[in-house]
Amino acid sequence: MTKDRLYLFDTTLRDGAQTNGLDFSVEDKILIAGILDDLGIDYVEGGYPGANPTDDAFFKEKRTKKATFTAFGMTKRAGRSVENDPGVQALINAASDAICFVAKSWDYHVDVALGCTNEENLEGIAESVKATNAAGKVAMVDCEHFFDGYKANRAYALDCVKTAYEAGARWVILCDTNGGTLPHEITQIVEDVLTLVPGTHIGIHAHNDTEQAVANSLAAVRAGVRQIQGTLNGIGERCGNANLITLIPTLKLKEEFADQFEIGVPDEKLVELTSISRGFDELLNKAPDRHSPYVGASAFATKAGIHASAILKDPQTYEHVDPALVGNHRKVLVSNQAGMSNLIDELKRMGIVVEKSDPRLVDLLSIVKEREAHGYAYEGASASLELLARRHLGSVPEYFKIESFRVMVERRHNANGDLVTLSEAVVKIWLDGEKLMSVAEATGPVNALDLALRKDLGRLQGKIDDLELVDYKVRILNGGTDAITRVLIESRDGAGHRWFTVGVSENIVDASFQALLDSITFKLLKYS
Amino acid sequence: MTKDRLYLFDTTLRDGAQTNGLDFSVEDKILIAGILDDLGIDYVEGGYPGANPTDDAFFKEKRTKKATFTAFGMTKRAGRSVENDPGVQALINAASDAICFVAKSWDYHVDVALGCTNEENLEGIAESVKATNAAGKVAMVDCEHFFDGYKANRAYALDCVKTAYEAGARWVILCDTNGGTLPHEITQIVEDVLTLVPGTHIGIHAHNDTEQAVANSLAAVRAGVRQIQGTLNGIGERCGNANLITLIPTLKLKEEFADQFEIGVPDEKLVELTSISRGFDELLNKAPDRHSPYVGASAFATKAGIHASAILKDPQTYEHVDPALVGNHRKVLVSNQAGMSNLIDELKRMGIVVEKSDPRLVDLLSIVKEREAHGYAYEGASASLELLARRHLGSVPEYFKIESFRVMVERRHNANGDLVTLSEAVVKIWLDGEKLMSVAEATGPVNALDLALRKDLGRLQGKIDDLELVDYKVRILNGGTDAITRVLIESRDGAGHRWFTVGVSENIVDASFQALLDSITFKLLKYS
Repeated sequence: MTKDRLYLFDTTLRDGAQTNGLDFSVEDKILIAGILDDLGIDYVEGGYPGANPTDDAFFKEKRTKKATFTAFGMTKRAGRSVENDPGVQALINAASDAICFVAKSWDYHVDVALGCTNEENLEGIAESVKATNAAGKVAMVDCEHFFDGYKANRAYALDCVKTAYEAGARWVILCDTNGGTLPHEITQIVEDVLTLVPGTHIGIHAHNDTEQAVANSLAAVRAGVRQIQGTLNGIGERCGNANLITLIPTLKLKEEFADQFEIGVPDEKLVELTSISRGFDELLNKAPDRHSPYVGASAFATKAGIHASAILKDPQTYEHVDPALVGNHRKVLVSNQAGMSNLIDELKRMGIVVEKSDPRLVDLLSIVKEREAHGYAYEGASASLELLARRHLGSVPEYFKIESFRVMVERRHNANGDLVTLSEAVVKIWLDGEKLMSVAEATGPVNALDLALRKDLGRLQGKIDDLELVDYKVRILNGGTDAITRVLIESRDGAGHRWFTVGVSENIVDASFQALLDSITFKLLKYS
Repeated sequence: MTKDRLYLFDTTLRDGAQTNGLDFSVEDKILIAGILDDLGIDYVEGGYPGANPTDDAFFKEKRTKKATFTAFGMTKRAGRSVENDPGVQALINAASDAICFVAKSWDYHVDVALGCTNEENLEGIAESVKATNAAGKVAMVDCEHFFDGYKANRAYALDCVKTAYEAGARWVILCDTNGGTLPHEITQIVEDVLTLVPGTHIGIHAHNDTEQAVANSLAAVRAGVRQIQGTLNGIGERCGNANLITLIPTLKLKEEFADQFEIGVPDEKLVELTSISRGFDELLNKAPDRHSPYVGASAFATKAGIHASAILKDPQTYEHVDPALVGNHRKVLVSNQAGMSNLIDELKRMGIVVEKSDPRLVDLLSIVKEREAHGYAYEGASASLELLARRHLGSVPEYFKIESFRVMVERRHNANGDLVTLSEAVVKIWLDGEKLMSVAEATGPVNALDLALRKDLGRLQGKIDDLELVDYKVRILNGGTDAITRVLIESRDGAGHRWFTVGVSENIVDASFQALLDSITFKLLKYS
């Protein structure tokens, strides 16, 4: 049986960016677009060129290889031509493959928000789509407030869809902008739309205001639409958008969908879903939700005593899907078997070959687990894990020894009466029997510490001169100012190597120092 | 039109207690049962008497006034009579009004987990239900793994339901134990069950493993069931149970359900939903999910500039329900996309009335935008925004003046040769012409600074004694150790007030100090 192609449209970088408290930089956007492209998403919507400097910079270049790189913006304004509408021109001139226009499809909003006539709005849709096609780009139209608009004025909402389709839009997307539409309403309304426009041109854009964005998206697919819009981890304004991280495995693993549909995400990418989801939270500096479907740390964890013995006999009868398929794992297993094979895999990737029966492995695994329970996150800090493993297996020299460090932060009035804040760090190390002492100043305490630590490594200094800190992330692991702090550091060198280290302490300066120290040691061990 | 009565069954204290990392005390259970009873829940399932000392103690007394107080346990074991089954006897002797038996309805599990015949299992169901009725209690049967069992052996799964019903069970509940069943499957299977047993005797118990527990529950109701089982905030094993906090407003506020059904939760209790949901998280010592449907702090928050001006004209066209009905409120975010109308609305919420034409507003908006461009995030720190606004409008007294602070972090070997890290902070302030100096020690620098700052505020000290830091979040805004750091602090006081402040600096200690200082100033201004 040939399967229908179902298209995934990611709007993490546009509608997702509306999330309360979230602010993507251009670098964040480039990183996320790359992840989505790799995953096999069909359309990556990157933002709104012309609306702010970040999106302007992001759309200076095409940011995807396979995915259709999509810009978002408004349709042509009433009373001017497409050529004289700077908004539309910014979209056409952006380095994107496609434009997704947002168009009002609720007559009330045409009047109140746009202040134009219904006909002018339709004309704006048609002309914007035509100009996009004329520019050789893919045209899409997001019908904003479609479902509420349909309930208020069915004929006009349908006119908007038809106008977009007939003007040549590749996709017309039905948006549940306020998020309050229920699955059975979605089914009925989509079926009505499909009497006018083929489903292969219709998409769904759902919000989670009744906790049914996933259900609404699937109901629309079952009713016949062939494009789903959503975001990573379901981020988005208010209660969020449809969660692609939940939808992807459901579409690929549930027979009802997998037998009928094909999506662009291959099986070998599906197993990366857990790490993509958690890595994305990491980027947002957010603790991953342990209870997330498929990818949460507890998604396959069983506590129930009455289940515990039976689950060991036949786990599949207690799990709706095999956790390994999405890169997650079962948690009821008391044995460390799963952790052990993970660890051996990980070591192999580092080039460390150990016999499966080597007793040091059992120790190493329990050290890793103990440290992770204390707050270390080796998933995002493989250089620190490698150092831990190699130290345990006895192959990391002690290049130098830390005697002590001290950091002082002071805020006071200077001679001119201005309030100034200054940090000063002193680091003392032993190298080849000699005590080396360095002091450095900077605005922040960690920066000062970093400068002092790398200022004088004696005969090793030449080997770390090209080391550079790329990123520095702090996570507070539990509430209050006396909480455990985790610091993740990304480093690189002149040869283009990149590595990640972690430090954990009740003291943020101490945690930073550990991660800095691991970074230098790793550089000396591997890249010098 | 007379409406159908729909019954709500809460299993927070039983299935919800299976949540990873959760542990209710008897006192917790009493408190929660009271909240559920007040809210208008029909059945409060309190736990499993006979299984552990907590539940034994909890079931020593009836813990609800209006709700049917329900005990959970297994059906009679094969090969013994009800009278000789200590499990069933413990249930019958518990101080409960009802018993909800869990019964296997998937023949595979009858064999593997129970190790008895299919007939013995049916007999266990029937005898347990009869004994419950004979004891004058309400009998209910949770058919475990019902949907998977139905797919594997439809006839046997249906036999279990029929047996329970014919033996006199008030309710037979169809459980999606593994949580992987999809809404359209629920619809089909429920419709089949209803050809045998009336819907007024059938319930649904859904889990969230595909993010569709709410959708599955509603699909079952639409197919004809009349009891929904769920938990507060959707807590539960793995990905959680159906979320009653989402289901209740959907059932009461969405026409499709409200026109047809009546539930036990009155309108005047609905407005308490937001505080019940957040209070429950408080009890679990968990930060409430800002994006929760209906009750999340961001559930009715709008950031988009193009929406913000229209939402003020007619909020109902941008909101699927009125937030006031669930005790939540609208929040138009002041972010760098926002305009003047946002700011005026926000000020109004703070109780600051300013004429739209007041020239100070233009200044204030540009200050806010400038600070946001520098890294401040006022949408997550409304107390800092309020201070900024009130200062600009001239209404915040200078309670005290910071002369200077100094923090030192030192890591060295102590007298025993152990490496230790210690922080010491000194804060000097001017109050009523007097210089007050405080010093404090702690593990981390921010903790030390917080302690020193709050140690001696002279005559103001009594007013901040109940101030407590609840959460502390750090965000590095761009790469490298010399990056801009943003600190968000959540504070509360003894009267239950909560407020959020922000600090931004190239120095993390300095950023923390700003946020701490704003927190204290806000407390003095508003809550003392």
